[in-house]
Amino acid sequence: MRLARALIWRMDLLTGGAPRILDRIQAPSDVKRLDFFECSKLAGELRSEIISVVAKNGGHLAPSLGVVELTLALLRAFDLEEDKVIWDVGHQAYAYKLLTGRRDQFSTLRRFGGISGFPKRTESPYDVFGVGHSSTSISAALGMAMARDLAGKKHHVTAVIGDGSMTAGMAFEALNHAGAVGSPLIVVLNDNEMSISRNVGALSLFLSSNLSANWMKRMKRRIESILLSIPNIGEDMMAVARRGEQTLKGFFSPSFLFEALNFNYVGPVDGHDLEEMSRVFELAKRQDAPVLVHVLTQKGRGFTPAEKNPAHFHGLGAFNPDTGEAYGSGTAFTYTKAFSSALIELAKDDPRIVAITAAMPEGTGLAAFAERFPKRFVDVGICEQHAVTLAAGMATQGLKPVVAVYSTFLQRSYDQILHDVALQKLPVIFCLDRAGIVGEDGPTHHGAFDLSYLRHMPNMAVLAPKNEDELRDMLITAVAADGPTAIRYPRGFRDGAVSERPARVLPWARMESLREGVDLAVIAAGDTALAALEAAKAVERESGKRISVSNARFVKPLPEEDILSLARRHSRLLLVEENALAGGFSSAVLELLADRGFLEKGLCVRRMGLPDAFVTHGEQALLRGMLGLDQSGMESVMKDMLAAN
Amino acid sequence: MRLARALIWRMDLLTGGAPRILDRIQAPSDVKRLDFFECSKLAGELRSEIISVVAKNGGHLAPSLGVVELTLALLRAFDLEEDKVIWDVGHQAYAYKLLTGRRDQFSTLRRFGGISGFPKRTESPYDVFGVGHSSTSISAALGMAMARDLAGKKHHVTAVIGDGSMTAGMAFEALNHAGAVGSPLIVVLNDNEMSISRNVGALSLFLSSNLSANWMKRMKRRIESILLSIPNIGEDMMAVARRGEQTLKGFFSPSFLFEALNFNYVGPVDGHDLEEMSRVFELAKRQDAPVLVHVLTQKGRGFTPAEKNPAHFHGLGAFNPDTGEAYGSGTAFTYTKAFSSALIELAKDDPRIVAITAAMPEGTGLAAFAERFPKRFVDVGICEQHAVTLAAGMATQGLKPVVAVYSTFLQRSYDQILHDVALQKLPVIFCLDRAGIVGEDGPTHHGAFDLSYLRHMPNMAVLAPKNEDELRDMLITAVAADGPTAIRYPRGFRDGAVSERPARVLPWARMESLREGVDLAVIAAGDTALAALEAAKAVERESGKRISVSNARFVKPLPEEDILSLARRHSRLLLVEENALAGGFSSAVLELLADRGFLEKGLCVRRMGLPDAFVTHGEQALLRGMLGLDQSGMESVMKDMLAAN
Repeated sequence: MRLARALIWRMDLLTGGAPRILDRIQAPSDVKRLDFFECSKLAGELRSEIISVVAKNGGHLAPSLGVVELTLALLRAFDLEEDKVIWDVGHQAYAYKLLTGRRDQFSTLRRFGGISGFPKRTESPYDVFGVGHSSTSISAALGMAMARDLAGKKHHVTAVIGDGSMTAGMAFEALNHAGAVGSPLIVVLNDNEMSISRNVGALSLFLSSNLSANWMKRMKRRIESILLSIPNIGEDMMAVARRGEQTLKGFFSPSFLFEALNFNYVGPVDGHDLEEMSRVFELAKRQDAPVLVHVLTQKGRGFTPAEKNPAHFHGLGAFNPDTGEAYGSGTAFTYTKAFSSALIELAKDDPRIVAITAAMPEGTGLAAFAERFPKRFVDVGICEQHAVTLAAGMATQGLKPVVAVYSTFLQRSYDQILHDVALQKLPVIFCLDRAGIVGEDGPTHHGAFDLSYLRHMPNMAVLAPKNEDELRDMLITAVAADGPTAIRYPRGFRDGAVSERPARVLPWARMESLREGVDLAVIAAGDTALAALEAAKAVERESGKRISVSNARFVKPLPEEDILSLARRHSRLLLVEENALAGGFSSAVLELLADRGFLEKGLCVRRMGLPDAFVTHGEQALLRGMLGLDQSGMESVMKDMLAAN
Repeated sequence: MRLARALIWRMDLLTGGAPRILDRIQAPSDVKRLDFFECSKLAGELRSEIISVVAKNGGHLAPSLGVVELTLALLRAFDLEEDKVIWDVGHQAYAYKLLTGRRDQFSTLRRFGGISGFPKRTESPYDVFGVGHSSTSISAALGMAMARDLAGKKHHVTAVIGDGSMTAGMAFEALNHAGAVGSPLIVVLNDNEMSISRNVGALSLFLSSNLSANWMKRMKRRIESILLSIPNIGEDMMAVARRGEQTLKGFFSPSFLFEALNFNYVGPVDGHDLEEMSRVFELAKRQDAPVLVHVLTQKGRGFTPAEKNPAHFHGLGAFNPDTGEAYGSGTAFTYTKAFSSALIELAKDDPRIVAITAAMPEGTGLAAFAERFPKRFVDVGICEQHAVTLAAGMATQGLKPVVAVYSTFLQRSYDQILHDVALQKLPVIFCLDRAGIVGEDGPTHHGAFDLSYLRHMPNMAVLAPKNEDELRDMLITAVAADGPTAIRYPRGFRDGAVSERPARVLPWARMESLREGVDLAVIAAGDTALAALEAAKAVERESGKRISVSNARFVKPLPEEDILSLARRHSRLLLVEENALAGGFSSAVLELLADRGFLEKGLCVRRMGLPDAFVTHGEQALLRGMLGLDQSGMESVMKDMLAAN
C-alpha cells in the first residue's frame, strides 16, 4: 500500500511528464511531503482550479484565493486525522476541499448533487463542523477542545476566522470564554481588512493601524524589562525613546487586546509566506494555552480583477476567467434593485428614514442609498443583533429605520426583533432579501423560516410582494404604518422591471384578487402568487373549471375577512408559500379557519411550501421544480384537487 | 406653582416634623436641590422602601440596592427632561422608579395592574427604553445618540450596564460600533464582579484584577510622557521603576481595552461615593467622544443578608425583611429541582453528559450538578449564542451536552440552534425552564414562544412533560435520542414531587391517553394536560358526556397516528398549550389534519393558548385564570363545545 502510494507519488519521474502536484494529493498529509518550492507550485495550481471552477459555477472567489497558502500551512502543521480545523463561515474553504479528498468532485461545486460551497459534515470527515453563518468557529472549536480535555486527549483544535467575522458578538463571547478556560486552542485571525465589503468598527481600525505588531511586541517586552531592571537604564532606554510615538502605538497593539482575554498572541505573519507561517504554527502548537495567530492575507490574491475589487469578487455568479467580467444576469433588474431605488425615492421626501445594514451594503442594495445619504446610512458590520436594537433605539427618537438583512442572517436577531422592537411596537422596518430558496448557497442560506419566526411575534406585520412593483408599494406602506413591519422577497427577479407609476400605500391587511373562480381558491404569499396565476390559467384551459387566485400580500395581520370570504365561496383551498410549511403562512390560514369555526363545514385544504427538512443546494429554478413550487408543480396539485370530489 | 413646590419642599420646616426626603421628590430634578448629606439620607430611605416592598412582592433586590447612590448621581448629573438614561436588563432600576414619579405606585411593584419590575416605555416617559433581557442598552443608547446627532441636538445619552451583561456579544458589538461612530455617548459599567451568580470569562478576570486603575492610568500617562520626553529621564523614571511590577499590571488595565475600542475611560470610581461620582459624571459630560465610566458597586449594599449572599438575593420571592429568610414556596419541589436531580442521576452512569448554563446555575438547577461534576459543568456567562454552538462543538465529539436556559433567554440563540445544531442533527439537549407564563417578571420573561420558534426547525424534537415525573422520563428519552431535543417546562411545580420509580425512556412520538371518551377529545401539551384532565372529569360529572384527554408529550415529531386516531373517533377536538397560539402546538395539529385530508370530513376544532399579544405581569395563577388556561377556563370551553351541535 505504502509502496503503491510512493509510486503514484513519483509517477512523473516514471512517465517523464509533469502532471499537476495537485493530482498527487491523495490525503491531506501528502502536503507535508512537499518542499516549499513544490508548495508554491501547488498554490498556483489550486488558484487556477478555483478560478476555473468558480468562473463556471459561481461562488466565493476572493476569500478562497486569499487563503491558499494559509490552507497549505495548516495542512503541513496539523495531522487532520486527529487534529481539527474549523473554518469560520466556510466560503474560503475551496482549497481545503481540493486538498481533502474532493478534487475529483470539485467541478460540481455548488451544483445540485455536487459538493457544497461550504464545509459540511456529511460531505467529508475533514469537515469537522458545518458552517455558513458567520462567527461560529471559535465556539465550536472550544467545544471540541473541551471535549478533548475531558477525554484526556491531546490533539490540536484550530479555528480560522476572518477579521470581519471577529466583530460579531458571538466571536467575542467565545474568545472571552476560551481565555477563561485556558485550554490549548488555536484561533487563526485571517486579517484581510475586509469582511465582505470594507470592514467597520473600532476593532478593525485598531487592528489595521498596527501592522507591525511583532516589532511592537518586542518593544513592549523591552520596555517592561527596562522598567523592571532599573536603575540600569542606559542605552536601551534611549533606543526606545527615539521611537516614542511608535511605542505609544505599541501600547495599543492587537496583542494587548487578545492578551487581555488571556490569549497568547503571535503575529502578524504574512499569510502568503508559507515558511513563516509554518514556523509560527509550530510555535502555536507548543503552547499550553489559547493562542491567537494573526495572519495577514490579501483577498482575491493571484487573480488581478479580484485583487482590485475584492468586494465584487467576494461571492458572484459565472464570469470570464480571463477578464473577470460577469456573464449572465448581472445586470438584471432584481428585487434588490427595486428595493434600493424605492428606498432612495422615499428617503428624498422623508428625513426620518435611515438605513442599516450588517456588512452587506452591496448585497442588500443599500450601497446606492449610502452614496446618496451618507449620514443616514449605517453599516454595523456582521452584527445583526446590534443592528436591530440600534434601530429600536433610533425608532424611539422618531426615526424610521430600515434594516436590510438577508432572511437567513436576520435569524441571529430573533430575540432583538421580539424583545426590543415588537414588544415596544417600535416602527422599525425589516427588509428581508433572499427569502425562500436562494439556490447554490444551500441550506445555510435559504430564507426558509422567516414567515414562521416573524409571524408569531405580537405587533409585527409581515408582508410579501408578488413582484418588484409591489415591493415598492409595500415599502411605502411600511413607512406609513406605525409599528414593526417586515417585508420579505426572494433572490433574483420576477418581472425584472418596475412600472412608471408612483408607489402607493396598500390597504392594510387586505389581499389582492388576481382572478375570480368558483371551483378552487388559491391563496399565495409572495411571488408564488404569479406562478399560481399562470398555473391556474393553464389548468382552467385544460379542465374548464374556474379557479380563484389571490395574492395574500399580508402574512400578518392576516387578511382575515378576504380569506373567510373565499372560504365561504369555495370548498377547495390551496395555500402556497416559499417558506417552511411548519408555522408559516398556510399555518396562519389554518389557525384562522379553525378559530372562526370554518373547519366544521368541511374544507379540502392543500398546502404547498418548503418541507420539514433542510433544502439542499442547487439552481433556484431546479430546486423549486423539485419541491413542486413552480408553475408545473402547482398545476398538478390544482388538477388533483379538482379531480377529487 | 414654583412657590407651591418650594413650600412642599420645605414642609418639614413648617410642620416641625421630619418627613422623608423621598416624599418631597416630585420630579427627578428635585434630587439636584439636595446637598450630599440629604442625598445620603435619601439613599437610606430608598433602600428601606425597596427592601420593604421587595420583601412583600418579591423582586430583584440585590441589584437595586447596589445602585442607589449611582442612581442619585445620574439624576444629579443629567436633565432627564432631555437627557436619556437606559438601564441594561433593568432589574436594578427600583430606585430610579421611586425617583421618577412612581413612588406612590411602588407598593404595586410586579403585581398585576401595578408597575413593572423593569423599565417600560408605556409606564413612564423617563423609561426611554424597555428592557428585561441582558445587554441591549448600549445598542439602544447608540441608536438614540445617532438620532440626536442627525437632529442636530446636544443632550446626553447614558447606558448603565453591569459587568455581567458586558460579557454578552451584543454589548461588544455595540461598543465596537460606538467607538467607530465616535459620537458622545456615556456607558456606565456597573462593576460588582457579579452577573447574576459569580461572573465568568477572561474579561471579568481582567477587570477585577485591576481595581486601582486610576493609579495605573496616571502611571501609564507618566510612562508615556517619559518616553516622549527623553532624554530628560531623571527622577520620574526612577519613581516609576520602583513600582515595576504594578506598572506591568497597568499595561493591562481596563482602560486599554476600552481605549482600544475608541472609548475614553474614566475610573474606577467608588459607586457608593456620591461626590466622587458627581465629579466623574461632570467630566464625562464634557467629552466630545464615547466615554466609559467604570463604577464599582456592591450588590445588595445596605442589607446585610443580601451583601452576604448576593446571588440568592439577586431575584427572589417574599422574605422576612428583618432576617432575609424566605417565606412561602422556597422549599417546594419544583420542575427545576426535578430536572436537577434527574440530570445528576443520568450523569452518574453516562460520562458523555455535560451541562451548560448561561450565568444561571441556580435558576436552572445546575448548581447541584456543578458541585457533583465540576469538570462536566460549564457556565459561559450571559452568552446564550456561544453556549449553543459550544454545545454543538462538543456534540460532534461524542458528548451529550445539556443546555439549560430559560425559554425566553434561549430566544437569543435561535440562529445557533437552527444553523449549528438542527441542520447538523447534533445530539444537543435543550432544557427550557420557565416555559409559558412565568408571572411577576412579565412580558420580557414569559416563555411564550418556544414551541413556535423550535417546532419549525427540521430535525428538532420538542417535548413537554405533564409533571415533574415525566420530566425525568423525557430527559432520559432525550439522552437516548440521537438528535437535537428540547424539553420545555414551566416555572414552579405541578405535583411538587417525583415518584420512587426509576425514569424510563418514553415511546418516541407517541402521546399518552389519560382518559377515554367519545364526545370530545382534548389534546394538551405540557402540564396543561393535567388541568384539562381535572376539567374533563368535572364536565363529565355535570354533563354526562364522555371526554377523551391526551397528554401530547411530543410537540415534534407530532404523535401523528395517535392524533389522527382521535380525530377519526371524535368530531370535536380541543387543543391546549401554554404557548403562543400562532405557530405552536395546536398549529402543528391543524397542519397535520389538513395534510392528511381530515379537514374534509368537518371537524369542530377549538384552540386554547396564549393570545397574539404580549402578556402582562402578575401572579402566575391569576394570569392563567385571565387567559382561561386553568381548570375553570377549560371547563367552560369544553361545555361550550359539547353544547354545540
